[in-house]
Amino acid sequence: ERTGFPEVVYGEGKTADEIIRIFRSLKEHSEVLLATRIDEEKGRKIVEVHDDCTFDERSGTVYKKKPLEDTEHYIAVVCAGTSDLAVAEEAAITAEVFGVRVERVYDVGVAGLHRLLGEIERIRAARVSIVVAGMEGALPSVVGGLVAHPVLAVPTSVGYGANFGGVSALLSMLNSCSSGISVVNIDNGFGAAYNAVMIEKMAGS
Amino acid sequence: ERTGFPEVVYGEGKTADEIIRIFRSLKEHSEVLLATRIDEEKGRKIVEVHDDCTFDERSGTVYKKKPLEDTEHYIAVVCAGTSDLAVAEEAAITAEVFGVRVERVYDVGVAGLHRLLGEIERIRAARVSIVVAGMEGALPSVVGGLVAHPVLAVPTSVGYGANFGGVSALLSMLNSCSSGISVVNIDNGFGAAYNAVMIEKMAGS
Amino acid sequence: ERTGFPEVVYGEGKTADEIIRIFRSLKEHSEVLLATRIDEEKGRKIVEVHDDCTFDERSGTVYKKKPLEDTEHYIAVVCAGTSDLAVAEEAAITAEVFGVRVERVYDVGVAGLHRLLGEIERIRAARVSIVVAGMEGALPSVVGGLVAHPVLAVPTSVGYGANFGGVSALLSMLNSCSSGISVVNIDNGFGAAYNAVMIEKMAGS
Amino acid sequence: ERTGFPEVVYGEGKTADEIIRIFRSLKEHSEVLLATRIDEEKGRKIVEVHDDCTFDERSGTVYKKKPLEDTEHYIAVVCAGTSDLAVAEEAAITAEVFGVRVERVYDVGVAGLHRLLGEIERIRAARVSIVVAGMEGALPSVVGGLVAHPVLAVPTSVGYGANFGGVSALLSMLNSCSSGISVVNIDNGFGAAYNAVMIEKMAGS
Amino acid sequence: ERTGFPEVVYGEGKTADEIIRIFRSLKEHSEVLLATRIDEEKGRKIVEVHDDCTFDERSGTVYKKKPLEDTEHYIAVVCAGTSDLAVAEEAAITAEVFGVRVERVYDVGVAGLHRLLGEIERIRAARVSIVVAGMEGALPSVVGGLVAHPVLAVPTSVGYGANFGGVSALLSMLNSCSSGISVVNIDNGFGAAYNAVMIEKMAGS
Amino acid sequence: ERTGFPEVVYGEGKTADEIIRIFRSLKEHSEVLLATRIDEEKGRKIVEVHDDCTFDERSGTVYKKKPLEDTEHYIAVVCAGTSDLAVAEEAAITAEVFGVRVERVYDVGVAGLHRLLGEIERIRAARVSIVVAGMEGALPSVVGGLVAHPVLAVPTSVGYGANFGGVSALLSMLNSCSSGISVVNIDNGFGAAYNAVMIEKMAGS
Amino acid sequence: ERTGFPEVVYGEGKTADEIIRIFRSLKEHSEVLLATRIDEEKGRKIVEVHDDCTFDERSGTVYKKKPLEDTEHYIAVVCAGTSDLAVAEEAAITAEVFGVRVERVYDVGVAGLHRLLGEIERIRAARVSIVVAGMEGALPSVVGGLVAHPVLAVPTSVGYGANFGGVSALLSMLNSCSSGISVVNIDNGFGAAYNAVMIEKMAGS
Amino acid sequence: ERTGFPEVVYGEGKTADEIIRIFRSLKEHSEVLLATRIDEEKGRKIVEVHDDCTFDERSGTVYKKKPLEDTEHYIAVVCAGTSDLAVAEEAAITAEVFGVRVERVYDVGVAGLHRLLGEIERIRAARVSIVVAGMEGALPSVVGGLVAHPVLAVPTSVGYGANFGGVSALLSMLNSCSSGISVVNIDNGFGAAYNAVMIEKMAGS
Ligand SMILES: Nc1ncnc2c1ncn2[C@@H]1O[C@H](COP(=O)(O)O)[C@@H](O)[C@H]1O
Ligand SMILES: Nc1ncnc2c1ncn2[C@@H]1O[C@H](COP(=O)(O)O)[C@@H](O)[C@H]1O
Ligand SMILES: Nc1ncnc2c1ncn2[C@@H]1O[C@H](COP(=O)(O)O)[C@@H](O)[C@H]1O
Ligand SMILES: Nc1ncnc2c1ncn2[C@@H]1O[C@H](COP(=O)(O)O)[C@@H](O)[C@H]1O
Ligand SMILES: [Mg+2]
Ligand SMILES: [Mg+2]
Ligand SMILES: [Mg+2]
Ligand SMILES: [Mg+2]
Ligand SMILES: [Mg+2]
Ligand SMILES: [Mg+2]
Ligand SMILES: [Mg+2]
Ligand SMILES: [Mg+2]
Repeated sequence: ERTGFPEVVYGEGKTADEIIRIFRSLKEHSEVLLATRIDEEKGRKIVEVHDDCTFDERSGTVYKKKPLEDTEHYIAVVCAGTSDLAVAEEAAITAEVFGVRVERVYDVGVAGLHRLLGEIERIRAARVSIVVAGMEGALPSVVGGLVAHPVLAVPTSVGYGANFGGVSALLSMLNSCSSGISVVNIDNGFGAAYNAVMIEKMAGS
Repeated sequence: ERTGFPEVVYGEGKTADEIIRIFRSLKEHSEVLLATRIDEEKGRKIVEVHDDCTFDERSGTVYKKKPLEDTEHYIAVVCAGTSDLAVAEEAAITAEVFGVRVERVYDVGVAGLHRLLGEIERIRAARVSIVVAGMEGALPSVVGGLVAHPVLAVPTSVGYGANFGGVSALLSMLNSCSSGISVVNIDNGFGAAYNAVMIEKMAGS
Repeated sequence: ERTGFPEVVYGEGKTADEIIRIFRSLKEHSEVLLATRIDEEKGRKIVEVHDDCTFDERSGTVYKKKPLEDTEHYIAVVCAGTSDLAVAEEAAITAEVFGVRVERVYDVGVAGLHRLLGEIERIRAARVSIVVAGMEGALPSVVGGLVAHPVLAVPTSVGYGANFGGVSALLSMLNSCSSGISVVNIDNGFGAAYNAVMIEKMAGS
Repeated sequence: ERTGFPEVVYGEGKTADEIIRIFRSLKEHSEVLLATRIDEEKGRKIVEVHDDCTFDERSGTVYKKKPLEDTEHYIAVVCAGTSDLAVAEEAAITAEVFGVRVERVYDVGVAGLHRLLGEIERIRAARVSIVVAGMEGALPSVVGGLVAHPVLAVPTSVGYGANFGGVSALLSMLNSCSSGISVVNIDNGFGAAYNAVMIEKMAGS
Repeated sequence: ERTGFPEVVYGEGKTADEIIRIFRSLKEHSEVLLATRIDEEKGRKIVEVHDDCTFDERSGTVYKKKPLEDTEHYIAVVCAGTSDLAVAEEAAITAEVFGVRVERVYDVGVAGLHRLLGEIERIRAARVSIVVAGMEGALPSVVGGLVAHPVLAVPTSVGYGANFGGVSALLSMLNSCSSGISVVNIDNGFGAAYNAVMIEKMAGS
Repeated sequence: ERTGFPEVVYGEGKTADEIIRIFRSLKEHSEVLLATRIDEEKGRKIVEVHDDCTFDERSGTVYKKKPLEDTEHYIAVVCAGTSDLAVAEEAAITAEVFGVRVERVYDVGVAGLHRLLGEIERIRAARVSIVVAGMEGALPSVVGGLVAHPVLAVPTSVGYGANFGGVSALLSMLNSCSSGISVVNIDNGFGAAYNAVMIEKMAGS
Repeated sequence: ERTGFPEVVYGEGKTADEIIRIFRSLKEHSEVLLATRIDEEKGRKIVEVHDDCTFDERSGTVYKKKPLEDTEHYIAVVCAGTSDLAVAEEAAITAEVFGVRVERVYDVGVAGLHRLLGEIERIRAARVSIVVAGMEGALPSVVGGLVAHPVLAVPTSVGYGANFGGVSALLSMLNSCSSGISVVNIDNGFGAAYNAVMIEKMAGS
Repeated sequence: ERTGFPEVVYGEGKTADEIIRIFRSLKEHSEVLLATRIDEEKGRKIVEVHDDCTFDERSGTVYKKKPLEDTEHYIAVVCAGTSDLAVAEEAAITAEVFGVRVERVYDVGVAGLHRLLGEIERIRAARVSIVVAGMEGALPSVVGGLVAHPVLAVPTSVGYGANFGGVSALLSMLNSCSSGISVVNIDNGFGAAYNAVMIEKMAGS
């Protein structure tokens, strides 16, 4: 592919059999594999056949990674709590499959600022951050104000009531008063990782 | 009034003359006066007649306060930047007219967390906080996580694009992951102050 | 915890086993326990293990309360009909677990004003009211006009057609013409109680 | 006209001259006249030519009524405060031009229930009520619960913030928990009156 | 009841047992019975116990009617096609339980105007019409233009795509260019019937 | 141009001088000219310089047409009342500038069906219809049910209250129960004409 | 039927038995048959009885076609990827049942422009195109800019996050900067085909 | 500033005098200056005092740049037509003030793909692209599919009808089927440039 990125299978609406077949053909020219939006049943079936692949239920991904090169450069994947982990892991695994080191900085929501501040140097040392947040979606603004690198913000559909399936978080992120933040679609961990990896790779090693 | 609160004139849709007349009659039984939503032209006309009143253009209020009692107890009115000052001042002036001491903690947006952290003790020492924010509306969540008293959150209509006249901030506040936050209507500084004063007075002196 | 409030488990997205474990560890330093958003299956499992806890199906809570001190002070929890009871009870139980006396004033919708007026003294005598309403969400405005204390309004998602999952009630409450009302997220009985308890405790005993 | 109702001119988008001409031709077969949505400039021009007509600035109507027959039957037009008067008067004047007696019951908002209860017998004695309300739009629900006749509810665009130009009041009315309420478009005082008069006339004298 | 109307059970969120109990107690002072929003399982259970009641699956109602008096006066219930029948029948059965004669004029959508025109005299002869429509919701406007009596318009949630669960039809009806139309909530056949019966009864026999 | 259609100037955001210049250069290879969205001031300026052009204030167009060939084939442009004329004329003039005969069938709203039925043969005889409607947007559904040719539906932003700047009419048209209707953007008379002319020309002469 | 088009059964809300009966009666005067919105279970049942019909699961249609005449004229049905195929096939099958030749141009999304450009002559040679797209809905704009015939755009509900069930694609299509595009309801492949066939037939053979 | 970026003045809601004063103080430590959202009147006043600054009316900016270093690296700023130039120029000027070379690729909308394809190499050679689009917002998807570097998408509020002030374009961009696209707020040319410059600088010279 012109972009030099491995092809990723979007699992929604595809059967396990279809994905198994696609993986077979992808293996002909690719050492790594990734399928997203895979539910438990499909995941189990795929890794039965492709037993060099891992199924991660939480993020709904099936993947095969290569060992990463040793490097000080990384992408930080940041989120608040358990409820955003699915999307954060979709982003983290995608970046790793694409060959980039990831630091996971989880459980650092804005309601407990001390935890975030305790981890801030680990975030600051990244070249790009992916910040995942549901509900009020404030985390990217706060992180964006504390770091000097690009922040990819991912709203999640987690929450209830007036969160409207992620719209509340999406609007927060679009209206952020911190500079250096751009936004991808609700729950689109994959898309954030794709962008982050592009930026990371551009920066060189 | 049963509530023990002075009557406040909502200026929208009333002429200067009407407000002048209402103030005249209110003076018969009240030492303090407050009218909100007053534009410059009306404001000038009213204070020409009622020259014991002050017109504050920024907040669109005309008021007459009594000197406050000396007290360590206060309401904190917190906001980010110049653009939210109108609403913050509507809240602050309302609280002062109602006889409660106010500490203004302005220019402490989430994009510059150090400024907020530098002022946090002044906010923590309040009995109630009114936190005003437009755009992504993240400030009440951050403040709410740092203080142990009730936070009244006021979304403002300030911003552009996908802020939708304050809806973005409103949704953020309703979906806050911090506990102890309740919300009033967009731009309703008066309403936040009314609530805050009720709580403050209940706590005693 | 700095706030002096017991930690509460938000059950959505957690398994029964996870909650059972969390309760075990919470018991080490807390006499009371509360988990919200618990469905029947999870609830049964949890109380099988933690048999000093009660599962309340209607409100989806599992809790362990301490006997309340004898006091004339209380929070009123007010709602219209059967359909809002789940949220009202989430609020009431939360407040009780937090150690505050609650008066339940149920079945007092605005369509039958005489019932509400018959109970109004019981509401007036509270220090704070939590008013829960779905559909047109008018109850907090009516109660707010009749009492002189703070009203926490909770919109519920109950209804059909143009209620839009609670948006109709939410907007009513935000636009209330009564003063002294602030609003929490749709169906957020817990949040209303958290605020109400904060205010109640501030007022002292 | 088949309906037996006088033709009414909708002034929006018509010039004063056009309305003057239309009135001239309507006079050929009608003793009464009504034009709605007329601003001050147009209104002055029309009554200069048609000096048997009255221009009511508040409601934006120009009209010529016939004296009403003496009757105990009437339509009640009910609203809260000054801000809804324009729409209430559009309704009241329309009904009077159509030959029906109107009782105006103004300044009876839900935030001050005692005033409403003080007037309730005057409303109950009507055959139909038109209830006009902006902001939270709760008044029709409360009135609907107190009377046994049909209530036409008219949301108004009055308010600010999350009232969304009348949507908040509209939704409240559509979701009313009181029976016997039907709704017309935001600010459509004319439409409510048209319906109310139809019902009133059907009931006979 | 002050209104002289039988009490109706809103089935949503009530168990079959609860409704069976309520019916038992209603029977003490009422010859007719009505419960709405009843699914098949609940319906079967209720009529097993109350075998003088009928369960109508299409409209989700359980009811017991009295024979109607012989009369030329009636309410027309009008709708387009099979998809709106559930709501139309909720309206028709409600009116009949309340003691009013109903003429059903079904299968007369605006896409086939000849059918509607063929039935128009039957509609015109009614004292009130209930017009039920989903999708584009145009039927009440067309009927309203052809009849001289009040039209209660009921939007339904039937359709797909940009119908938004009935919002499309609701907005059409609120913005109708025909006079004499008022609107109830989406799918609220009961509410339309309640209004229509009030008007019908007022007109006398 | 590949499409064989004259180039049309979209006037919004262009100065009179810019349009004058563009017209000058278009004249080099085109006998006809059209600019849309032109307000009065700009219109007057343009026709002062290009005095072979006509300014039509109602539709906001400046144009130069060629005489049409004599033909029995035409496009019908259909609308209800005065308020939709601007958009209807934008469509009609566009079609005429593009060399197609237009029959204007105005003042045929659904509230007065007899007028529409009186003109229906003139509409039926067209090869394509453009049906323009604001408010409830029902006209295309009714026309679509009566003709056997394609209907281009144009919602207009005319109305007030819950018409939401044309959204009500747009949704009606998208949800039409009549077949053979497709929709263009709100107020987009030009776009409807462009489509209609394409279809008309394809049908041959 | 006046339109000369076969009657099509809209399967939603009809039982297999009802459709089987309708097909039986349609067969009396029609050689072709079509039912849309048929799920697998219903589809299987129908073709068991009507074994001259085909059930296409992907598009949810049951149909019986006649062999098409040999012709160079056709409708192009264009879409991006697997996820829009259901709607594209509903359109293609409808057109074929109506007797028009269809060229399917699938897998030509805007993210891979070279594929689209490689197929563009096949699209250009059509007399009408139906362009189906979900997510950002950009394909009709790109195709519309490349062809000189009418484009019927069909938004699909495919996607996640801020696609809002097809609203994102719908708005894109309504706001297209390409001329010659008109839009039908979300997922309405049938409606697009109906329009396209009308246009195709008008153009003659 | 920690970020190494010059401070930018957001002009909305600031007076000319305030901005003049801020510029004066910024000059003490910065060679470059930038204020955005400046209307004509303010712009003229500011450059009268700060005559080393330029006022660009189209983009509403006042700025002072330094000569750029000679470099092959640049950011591409891409847009369709005249109507998006204001936002495109806000982006381009911001990037230049921040010291980065910009290539402007204007007038390349998706409706005229040949123009875009003619310029595509100039876009491909950039390290980052800012793609600005109103109406249907399809341009970033098309560009994103053709380049292998990060694309910052900026929706603009340009358009009419169902564009809803930029929401249509915003949703298109969030739902893009091309990878490597992230989105900023409607009309936020400044924000896109800030992100792009961060990425560009990270890539080194
Ligand atoms: N979770 C995801 N969200 C959005 N896009 C995705 C996701 N996973 C994969 N994709 C994109 O979908 C493309 C594959 O789509 P498909 O050919 O339908 O499997 C990939 O190349 C990615 O660009
Ligand atoms: N800025 C404000 N926003 C909302 N409500 C207000 C405001 N100012 C005053 N009010 C309320 O409006 C009431 C007075 O309304 P009015 O009688 O129309 O002047 C006061 O008693 C307050 O409850
Ligand atoms: N304020 C109003 N709101 C809605 N409809 C109105 C109003 N005033 C008059 N109308 C209706 O508009 C019709 C006249 O419209 P027109 O012919 O445009 O003047 C009247 O017959 C009424 O049905
Ligand atoms: N056009 C713009 N849109 C959004 N943010 C801007 C814009 N221009 C400047 N800013 C941001 O606003 C900050 C300055 O805000 P202020 O202190 O209110 O002038 C800058 O540092 C930028 O981060
Ligand atoms: Mg930063
Ligand atoms: Mg706190
Ligand atoms: Mg009160
Ligand atoms: Mg009643
Ligand atoms: Mg009528
Ligand atoms: Mg037709
Ligand atoms: Mg084209
Ligand atoms: Mg790319």
